Amino acid sequence: MINPKLPAFWYGGDYNPEQWPEEIWAEDMRLFKTAGINIATVNIFSWSLLQTAEGSYSFDRLDKILGMLADNNIYACLATATAAQPHWMSKKYPEILPVDMHGRKKEWGGRVNFCPNSRKYREFAVDLVARLAKRYAGHPALVLWHIANEYGTYCYCENCARAFRKWLQKRYGTIEEVNARWYTSFWSQTLYDWEEIPTPSMLNVLFERDGRLETVAQGMLLDYQRFMSESTLKCYTAEYETIKKYTPDLPVTTNLMGPFKPLDYFSWAKKLDVVSWDSYPVRGEDFRNTAFRHALMRGLKKGQPFILMEQAPSQTNWRYHCAQKRPGEMRLLSYQAIAHGAETIMFFQLRQSRGGPEKYHSAVIAHAGHEKTRVFQEISGLGRELRDLGSQLLDATGYAQAAVLFAWENWWALENSMGPSRGIDYVKEATRYYRALAGQHVGVDVIGLEDDFDKYNILAAPYLYMLKPGIVDRLEKFVAQGGTLVITTMSGLVDENDLVTLGGYPGELRNLAGIWVEELDALPPEEKNRLSVTGSFRNSFPSAVYSCSLLFDVIHPAGAQPLAVYERDYYAGRPAVTVNNYGSGRVYYIGTCPENKYLDVLTAVLCREQGLKPLLPSVPPGIEVTKRIKGNASYLFILNHDTKEQSVELPSGSHTELLSGKTVRGKVKLPPYGTLILHS
Amino acid sequence: MINPKLPAFWYGGDYNPEQWPEEIWAEDMRLFKTAGINIATVNIFSWSLLQTAEGSYSFDRLDKILGMLADNNIYACLATATAAQPHWMSKKYPEILPVDMHGRKKEWGGRVNFCPNSRKYREFAVDLVARLAKRYAGHPALVLWHIANEYGTYCYCENCARAFRKWLQKRYGTIEEVNARWYTSFWSQTLYDWEEIPTPSMLNVLFERDGRLETVAQGMLLDYQRFMSESTLKCYTAEYETIKKYTPDLPVTTNLMGPFKPLDYFSWAKKLDVVSWDSYPVRGEDFRNTAFRHALMRGLKKGQPFILMEQAPSQTNWRYHCAQKRPGEMRLLSYQAIAHGAETIMFFQLRQSRGGPEKYHSAVIAHAGHEKTRVFQEISGLGRELRDLGSQLLDATGYAQAAVLFAWENWWALENSMGPSRGIDYVKEATRYYRALAGQHVGVDVIGLEDDFDKYNILAAPYLYMLKPGIVDRLEKFVAQGGTLVITTMSGLVDENDLVTLGGYPGELRNLAGIWVEELDALPPEEKNRLSVTGSFRNSFPSAVYSCSLLFDVIHPAGAQPLAVYERDYYAGRPAVTVNNYGSGRVYYIGTCPENKYLDVLTAVLCREQGLKPLLPSVPPGIEVTKRIKGNASYLFILNHDTKEQSVELPSGSHTELLSGKTVRGKVKLPPYGTLILHS
Amino acid sequence: MINPKLPAFWYGGDYNPEQWPEEIWAEDMRLFKTAGINIATVNIFSWSLLQTAEGSYSFDRLDKILGMLADNNIYACLATATAAQPHWMSKKYPEILPVDMHGRKKEWGGRVNFCPNSRKYREFAVDLVARLAKRYAGHPALVLWHIANEYGTYCYCENCARAFRKWLQKRYGTIEEVNARWYTSFWSQTLYDWEEIPTPSMLNVLFERDGRLETVAQGMLLDYQRFMSESTLKCYTAEYETIKKYTPDLPVTTNLMGPFKPLDYFSWAKKLDVVSWDSYPVRGEDFRNTAFRHALMRGLKKGQPFILMEQAPSQTNWRYHCAQKRPGEMRLLSYQAIAHGAETIMFFQLRQSRGGPEKYHSAVIAHAGHEKTRVFQEISGLGRELRDLGSQLLDATGYAQAAVLFAWENWWALENSMGPSRGIDYVKEATRYYRALAGQHVGVDVIGLEDDFDKYNILAAPYLYMLKPGIVDRLEKFVAQGGTLVITTMSGLVDENDLVTLGGYPGELRNLAGIWVEELDALPPEEKNRLSVTGSFRNSFPSAVYSCSLLFDVIHPAGAQPLAVYERDYYAGRPAVTVNNYGSGRVYYIGTCPENKYLDVLTAVLCREQGLKPLLPSVPPGIEVTKRIKGNASYLFILNHDTKEQSVELPSGSHTELLSGKTVRGKVKLPPYGTLILHS
Repeated sequence: MINPKLPAFWYGGDYNPEQWPEEIWAEDMRLFKTAGINIATVNIFSWSLLQTAEGSYSFDRLDKILGMLADNNIYACLATATAAQPHWMSKKYPEILPVDMHGRKKEWGGRVNFCPNSRKYREFAVDLVARLAKRYAGHPALVLWHIANEYGTYCYCENCARAFRKWLQKRYGTIEEVNARWYTSFWSQTLYDWEEIPTPSMLNVLFERDGRLETVAQGMLLDYQRFMSESTLKCYTAEYETIKKYTPDLPVTTNLMGPFKPLDYFSWAKKLDVVSWDSYPVRGEDFRNTAFRHALMRGLKKGQPFILMEQAPSQTNWRYHCAQKRPGEMRLLSYQAIAHGAETIMFFQLRQSRGGPEKYHSAVIAHAGHEKTRVFQEISGLGRELRDLGSQLLDATGYAQAAVLFAWENWWALENSMGPSRGIDYVKEATRYYRALAGQHVGVDVIGLEDDFDKYNILAAPYLYMLKPGIVDRLEKFVAQGGTLVITTMSGLVDENDLVTLGGYPGELRNLAGIWVEELDALPPEEKNRLSVTGSFRNSFPSAVYSCSLLFDVIHPAGAQPLAVYERDYYAGRPAVTVNNYGSGRVYYIGTCPENKYLDVLTAVLCREQGLKPLLPSVPPGIEVTKRIKGNASYLFILNHDTKEQSVELPSGSHTELLSGKTVRGKVKLPPYGTLILHS
Repeated sequence: MINPKLPAFWYGGDYNPEQWPEEIWAEDMRLFKTAGINIATVNIFSWSLLQTAEGSYSFDRLDKILGMLADNNIYACLATATAAQPHWMSKKYPEILPVDMHGRKKEWGGRVNFCPNSRKYREFAVDLVARLAKRYAGHPALVLWHIANEYGTYCYCENCARAFRKWLQKRYGTIEEVNARWYTSFWSQTLYDWEEIPTPSMLNVLFERDGRLETVAQGMLLDYQRFMSESTLKCYTAEYETIKKYTPDLPVTTNLMGPFKPLDYFSWAKKLDVVSWDSYPVRGEDFRNTAFRHALMRGLKKGQPFILMEQAPSQTNWRYHCAQKRPGEMRLLSYQAIAHGAETIMFFQLRQSRGGPEKYHSAVIAHAGHEKTRVFQEISGLGRELRDLGSQLLDATGYAQAAVLFAWENWWALENSMGPSRGIDYVKEATRYYRALAGQHVGVDVIGLEDDFDKYNILAAPYLYMLKPGIVDRLEKFVAQGGTLVITTMSGLVDENDLVTLGGYPGELRNLAGIWVEELDALPPEEKNRLSVTGSFRNSFPSAVYSCSLLFDVIHPAGAQPLAVYERDYYAGRPAVTVNNYGSGRVYYIGTCPENKYLDVLTAVLCREQGLKPLLPSVPPGIEVTKRIKGNASYLFILNHDTKEQSVELPSGSHTELLSGKTVRGKVKLPPYGTLILHS
Repeated sequence: MINPKLPAFWYGGDYNPEQWPEEIWAEDMRLFKTAGINIATVNIFSWSLLQTAEGSYSFDRLDKILGMLADNNIYACLATATAAQPHWMSKKYPEILPVDMHGRKKEWGGRVNFCPNSRKYREFAVDLVARLAKRYAGHPALVLWHIANEYGTYCYCENCARAFRKWLQKRYGTIEEVNARWYTSFWSQTLYDWEEIPTPSMLNVLFERDGRLETVAQGMLLDYQRFMSESTLKCYTAEYETIKKYTPDLPVTTNLMGPFKPLDYFSWAKKLDVVSWDSYPVRGEDFRNTAFRHALMRGLKKGQPFILMEQAPSQTNWRYHCAQKRPGEMRLLSYQAIAHGAETIMFFQLRQSRGGPEKYHSAVIAHAGHEKTRVFQEISGLGRELRDLGSQLLDATGYAQAAVLFAWENWWALENSMGPSRGIDYVKEATRYYRALAGQHVGVDVIGLEDDFDKYNILAAPYLYMLKPGIVDRLEKFVAQGGTLVITTMSGLVDENDLVTLGGYPGELRNLAGIWVEELDALPPEEKNRLSVTGSFRNSFPSAVYSCSLLFDVIHPAGAQPLAVYERDYYAGRPAVTVNNYGSGRVYYIGTCPENKYLDVLTAVLCREQGLKPLLPSVPPGIEVTKRIKGNASYLFILNHDTKEQSVELPSGSHTELLSGKTVRGKVKLPPYGTLILHS
């Protein structure tokens, strides 16, 4: 559990009483209790109220707020308020304000609007945080620190350029080494002096084509992405270390945002005591997308339970068309989070703002101001359920027999690439492989490069474009010991500086895959090819042909067996998918983008080969199943994401269903958006 | 009439002889007289010729031009030439040049390219105008002053920032009040010093998503829109007051542009002696769109006749595909303007330019240079007709039993909003309600917030998002006395600072509407719902179901009766349209975006309830009917916008048709683009 | 031939050994010889390696490279390396870096990233080139100089503004003349001082609508395009003249890019000893597009054989979806180049880069590093064929009975135009007329305004918007002597300053065309009209009606006969296409954009009228035929662009087919992508 001080599901969310007159606060307390809320995240955006001028602080309001929470037995997730510095500060110390990629010095407005390498910003932030930590160290309400908010703005100022040069010096030592790593011999880009290195911006190596950012300097941009992620992390760790001086035992987090490209969250997670994240699914998207994001966030700290820091009670306000969450949808999404390891359900926000850019974002207490709303009632209902669940689900661990590998540096390098295709979308493809495996109901994690592979029977490492040192050895060991590895087109192409591994694709993975890829053909998404299933595999596949698109590896088997061949084009009849026996395991190579149906069948075959049993014998589409384990107990989550009722055949025997408290067995019906939690 | 010196329809347009050698001027005069032209707008863009350097003026050419016009019995609309300052001036006084929203200081080029808060610009403009007014005060040709041209460029310079701060100080008094109005407690935006306030630009609170400008600071942007509209108006009034010193009795105008978002034309109209505007309908658009714009422009000064300052004789040049006006189309559009209150028909321009950005814009005298063109012949024909109409139609007033409310501040606030839907388009929706009412042929005005509601039986106030103080009282009085009020979704949400009225939507309109709106659902335009007509209303509606989209209010009746319910989604069966009896009147609330067909039937029901008689008993689609009244005389305009011949049943009795001079009765045929003006 | 030192087809391409360790060079030599490569373009992007600091040069590596080439009997196309200056230079002399059209000073990155008017840039470039020329003047490998690379970046800096003013002073003499030429009387743009003239940028007269650049100052922009093309040419000529001091007899070129808008290649070609260009056809585009581009490049120097400097061995990397060239496709495209006059087949590049922005661009030696690739094998195969062809095809001249006129200034002015249609695309339309004529298999050139018209029977001058002095006389002479001239809508409208010729369209072409165009109607592309073929012409046309779109001239015949009339709209029945007898010839006027089928039939009629014989009696679609002549010998190229086998009936008699060495006659089959070269 996150903090034994509050040994229950945490239920609450962002609370901004500084936007309201105090007379309304008491009503808030009443409504929170009505809804079963036990935690409030406060002080997120209060810096300009806490520090009204240089050297001038005022904590009275925050004292009152925290006191009120404590008096009402509501716990506090206390934010450090450093995501938006006061205007007076930006005005007095312009170095704090960032420069955007167009070279424009920003003025005030919005949030996360500071240069991550500004010394002044960090000094002010640490100073504020020290005061907060000292003041509230022993506060009875305090259970969690929340640093800043949704970090992630890149800066391109001269100050960052200087810091970038130092970072490069430390990483590469000499300018000659930078030249080698960045391959500056191409297009006469040789550097002779560190001072020649700018930040990569629209004034130099970035450009835009049809709304997409591209670059002529992949190596440089890749290093800038690393550098910006690290620079921003330093802002976080400066606060983290300050807090720990005063409250070494309180957990500290900052809210992440799922697959958010600017920051390498695997590096970040090392500095977080607990992962927290903000989940805003897009209306109508596949429930596996949300599942993938939960699994990724859970995977950041090796499966440790996480905090759902924000979700919308109903509609957001910043999409183009902001749909309400349908009745039951919020509850289902909450249980989905729990099914994936969340130990909190928290909302943005508890009371809806009267003004500001998010005033039409839904809240627990709507503009109407009372509890007689559908949304409030649903929230209260869930509050009761969570209270009744008690702490038994806390500290459970996930059950997974398969994993998908995900890596930020790989993402950056892959999508920085110019050619062979602009259609490559790393998150989309990683999600597609996750989706196929999760559809086998064998438990699927999303893990990082440094995680243990050997826990899993099946590892999918789609689009593993960049091979960092050591990774191939570990993959070989995983397979040699009996694991099933799935790799794909666009893999093994480059080293950690985006320099191509010579001698044939997929580079260092050739041995594992037992193939050589001669050409990477790329066609527009509408020009599809077809996969024809070959040989003995045909029996496993309900259909003999599947569609594939976008990328088409021209493969020479070198030990591997073809599983599917192309039907058309000059490479008709040549292998598109292969399998290679390696040690006690097997390596599947998918040399194209097959349609989902193909991946569904292929992953089924893989699970069968590995002898994996699904969590339920037969699962209709629209149903998600996960399992969590705690000691001898296991908890099976069955979630109906469909808008229609579904029937599910339970595992044999009788089970306690936690939400209803009933004993269930055999075939049961799940209403639309319904959830079962079976305890055995 | 605009000026009794020229007691006839004014017929002419922009004339730019400074682009031509003098030898061509005499030919111009001949052709103007051939075409029946009696007015020329001159001096629009002559500043750089009038003032060749600081302190150096040259009016000789203008003297000649005005003299020539007078000699030829052609009157002059004299422009002040201040829409485009000379380059030497911009170069010498860079403060005159504006800064755009990207923070870029503009260089010369184009027009309306000055900072509206530049003191130098205003000084130079007033100085020039004083000289013009003094010099030509008694000129026999002069009948109207035309200040500048199509104002509307916003500036974001430091000078504007200073002026904006002063404007805010005057409006709000203290910085604390600004904080309250702008809700700066959200996202830590609290201001402590006036100097912290910038102009709202892409460097701070504006941003772009998919080509649309958005903001995280709605309250600030709204005030900047007010401020920019007022600042620009001050440029106008500085000239206006100067002119009035010398020619107190001559009317003064500037040309407006219909629903042009940057300037609050209702405020502007107070400073115009007569409204003038430039009408450039888009090829193929619904004729009601043009009608709406005419009605809006007429409404700016409470129905007073207006000037059609510009229209294209045939094609424009600045659209992507510039279609010719088809034979008869220009004539029809001219009569449409007159049917709505225009007392002039004026063209841009009289002679087509050889060069410059609009050289392919059509003109009375084309590049061919002679009168043997279709366009010239049509213009001559209309000239004869207008001459024959004499002055009898002048000073007539419009006849309207219904009105649509339109307000610029409401427009700004509504579309500044982030959420619930980017699909909201105020002008489009106002036009749709106008269209439906106009389709009942009961006479429809478009009016402002300060206008008299009680003249009308029906008032539609669609998307009245912002309620300024006092407006609800006046609406209540209107309804209580028997009026029918139509209001819609997205209404009553905020006060004049875009702060939400708490306690339930539609805020202060709840009492009138007899409902409470709990949720505002928003879906992409392609996800439609259906309206099912309920109860006794069913008999009035030819169909039982209609399509609706985009916004879906979840309504709790609190006294109101449902007229239509949703067919689908979680709010299926709940009211989408309601009616509430209030005093002697009724309030209709439309909680969604219904298709036009629904609005057609609904407005028919409303007219019937109010006992309104249409101007003609039965009107085929494509036919527009308006009525103007002068003393005891009434003039019925029947305009065939269809490209096919149409039959119309006239009101009983016989009528004089003014264009043919014939007596007509019973059923008459209108050719394509045909017009009848019945005098009774 | 390009240089008698290498009297064969040149076969090779860009070679960048500076990106590789020397140990790999020997393997390069082996592979080059295996592939039949006899030329390498070196030193393209080596400036930063050659000149490591101001005054510090290092030619050792280049010495080695050239020595190695010579030792291996491979010739060198030696580049001057000036397309990308070193960063130290940009840093030390910021004037070298350009300012973009948004007013942003660029930092380093990419290539062709210098201000063409920078004195420092030119000094450094000339200094380097002098050293290169002196050092390698007598080098045995050297056969061609290659200046810079793909010139074409426009700059908008203050330095360019000053140079632009001088250029204008020289061209126009007085500021009054500039005012007249730029028609500044429109919108008060009168200039009083040269200093008032900026570069035309987004800060002043340029703007963007839906991603397309537009301007309110057509005359100014047109002159800036001329000025920028000339300024850039001066960079080239400075190097050219330096080289010629040292190696007066070696040919010099720079690589052009087909119809590349920024540079007027007809002016440039005068300064090139031989035209070279880079051909990157888009996958799936009509083979006539490539043919048009070859013909245009050939036409730059009156048909003189040219250099294919770059083509991709297989895929590019910078398209959105980079398809491989299919087996045989590279060979076919190579023979197409030769069929149009190329005497080289050269690739970008010989060895694929490990890093940099183009690392996924295909190369002769792929990342795999060996010769066992499809691409290498195809390249080797072609190498053998070219070697076997020997020199017999060199110095042949093209055979053409028809020509299409193409002019850069016309292109600029036409597309700068605002109105009547944004749908006008000069290259597309010129290509459509080329396509139709080439489809008659009569030999078609693309020529410039200064070229000899009288060599041709048919001249198409589509969209000849701008008439420069003298051109009409020459067209009249051409027609009077019996030529057939095809002109179109949007022609003859303006003089060389984009000022409209008054008195009726198409201006000075009226006499030739025997018509007067009263109106230019423009409609969106989806609103089509139909052409109805009239009178005796009907017999020549298989169909009586054809589709037309976009532009619709309303034509008054004044001597001309209608060939087709509009079917619809207000100009139904009026001529859309006319023919006028003039002297011994005829002028066809196409007053709209007809579909291709119409142009196919019309050009067939024209060829028949002129008695032109096709090169082959009957040619299936997908087959291209060209003829080249050398003394008494003629070479007929028959290229099958289809992916299916095709049969072709050869001219009577027997022929030697050069590639197979066989004698062929009668009907022969061409495989997909097959080529025949018949020698008679």
